[in-house]
Amino acid sequence: MPNQPDVLTQLNDRKSVRVFQDRPIAPQERRQIITAALQAPTAGNQMLYTILDIQSQEKKQRLARLCDNQPFIAQAPLVLIFLADCRRWTDIYRAAGLEPRKPQYSDLILALADALIAAQNTVVAAHALNLGSCYIGDIVEQHQEVTSLLTLDPWVVPAAMLVYGYPTEQQIQRRKPPRFDPRYIVQTDSYSPLSETQIRQMFQERSGRDDFDFDHYIQGVYQRKHISEFALEMARSVEIYLKAFA
Amino acid sequence: MPNQPDVLTQLNDRKSVRVFQDRPIAPQERRQIITAALQAPTAGNQMLYTILDIQSQEKKQRLARLCDNQPFIAQAPLVLIFLADCRRWTDIYRAAGLEPRKPQYSDLILALADALIAAQNTVVAAHALNLGSCYIGDIVEQHQEVTSLLTLDPWVVPAAMLVYGYPTEQQIQRRKPPRFDPRYIVQTDSYSPLSETQIRQMFQERSGRDDFDFDHYIQGVYQRKHISEFALEMARSVEIYLKAFA
Repeated sequence: MPNQPDVLTQLNDRKSVRVFQDRPIAPQERRQIITAALQAPTAGNQMLYTILDIQSQEKKQRLARLCDNQPFIAQAPLVLIFLADCRRWTDIYRAAGLEPRKPQYSDLILALADALIAAQNTVVAAHALNLGSCYIGDIVEQHQEVTSLLTLDPWVVPAAMLVYGYPTEQQIQRRKPPRFDPRYIVQTDSYSPLSETQIRQMFQERSGRDDFDFDHYIQGVYQRKHISEFALEMARSVEIYLKAFA
Repeated sequence: MPNQPDVLTQLNDRKSVRVFQDRPIAPQERRQIITAALQAPTAGNQMLYTILDIQSQEKKQRLARLCDNQPFIAQAPLVLIFLADCRRWTDIYRAAGLEPRKPQYSDLILALADALIAAQNTVVAAHALNLGSCYIGDIVEQHQEVTSLLTLDPWVVPAAMLVYGYPTEQQIQRRKPPRFDPRYIVQTDSYSPLSETQIRQMFQERSGRDDFDFDHYIQGVYQRKHISEFALEMARSVEIYLKAFA
């Protein structure tokens, strides 16, 4: 791959892609994406996750509906679900004639980490292959329908869903939303909450505008993200995942 | 950076590094690593995490002790802790005069994902800068000591700790532990547990040896990882994090 921009530039340029060309992903590229996942760091080389490759068009469509009605999910040529898998090692210990502990929340946290680390490697790999990707956080909603659709075990919990495809020209041109300045996100040695002044400054700086209307902007995020139907559904559903796990 | 291997090769070659040269990381490289974190995908561009840059040598040493006594942590020239931060947006809503919901476990799960995605971008960036890194899962142990050392809020939970530094020659030469074959980790359309035959095969194939002693090997992992002191401490500590969060 000659003239490929260096890794740091690629990490910084990557943005979410939600509109894909009607063009399949070749088997070799699919394999390269999966390989990047499996070669990611994993706690004690245990690979505490399972990746579901959703190939059934019907399942993609159901997932699109279950994940807060986002039709572009069904149009993605590649859909992967990264599952925190606390079941496999239980079976491994049993296969060796040992009595495993019941999985604990600490095992779930480690497995979620493993799954997300693997997921992010696929995002980086996809970008290097000129493929766009988008995380679908909504995969943790609708506990009952999703666990039944994917035949999940109570000890196997979705950590992330990702959709991948070749971006349309409009998506390539789309400006990446700017991030907050590092001085609000990175702290030295210990944690402290931001003051109201810092919070207002953080948003104003990110907007690049002197007349940025903080109150109005946050009101919009509050409606869309914080008290919206999907946020409440996610809260309900995750609660059930955690109860079922225990 | 001429002749840098392409991204996919870098992702596949990366392995954990636990022994570092006594050589600092220049400010520019530190900035590049932080930038890679902040430019990572984040749910709704909310950046649901805070990164702690542990510069105090005394704190590094305490963390090395608290994280299952691993002295190499204190020897790393760069130590970052990625915190799932469900406090900041609560403060943001309040600053805009709105009444936030109490953070739910769904918020924690999303924030953990954000933090881990950002963390993995730093691993990839570090590797591109010829820096080694290692995840320290033990950061979720010792709830009381860690939260007090880092002055964490109950809504701010460690997602990952990473240490970075220039690898010693021995670490560069170390063979990367082989992963399980994709056909045991990637499934199509729905989840199913592995059979005992598949489990035994999976380990035998990974070992590359016909005389691989499955029972003996798993017994060792069981002792070291599953019923060891640190595993029980992690279970205890994570339970407290979750209770304190709610």
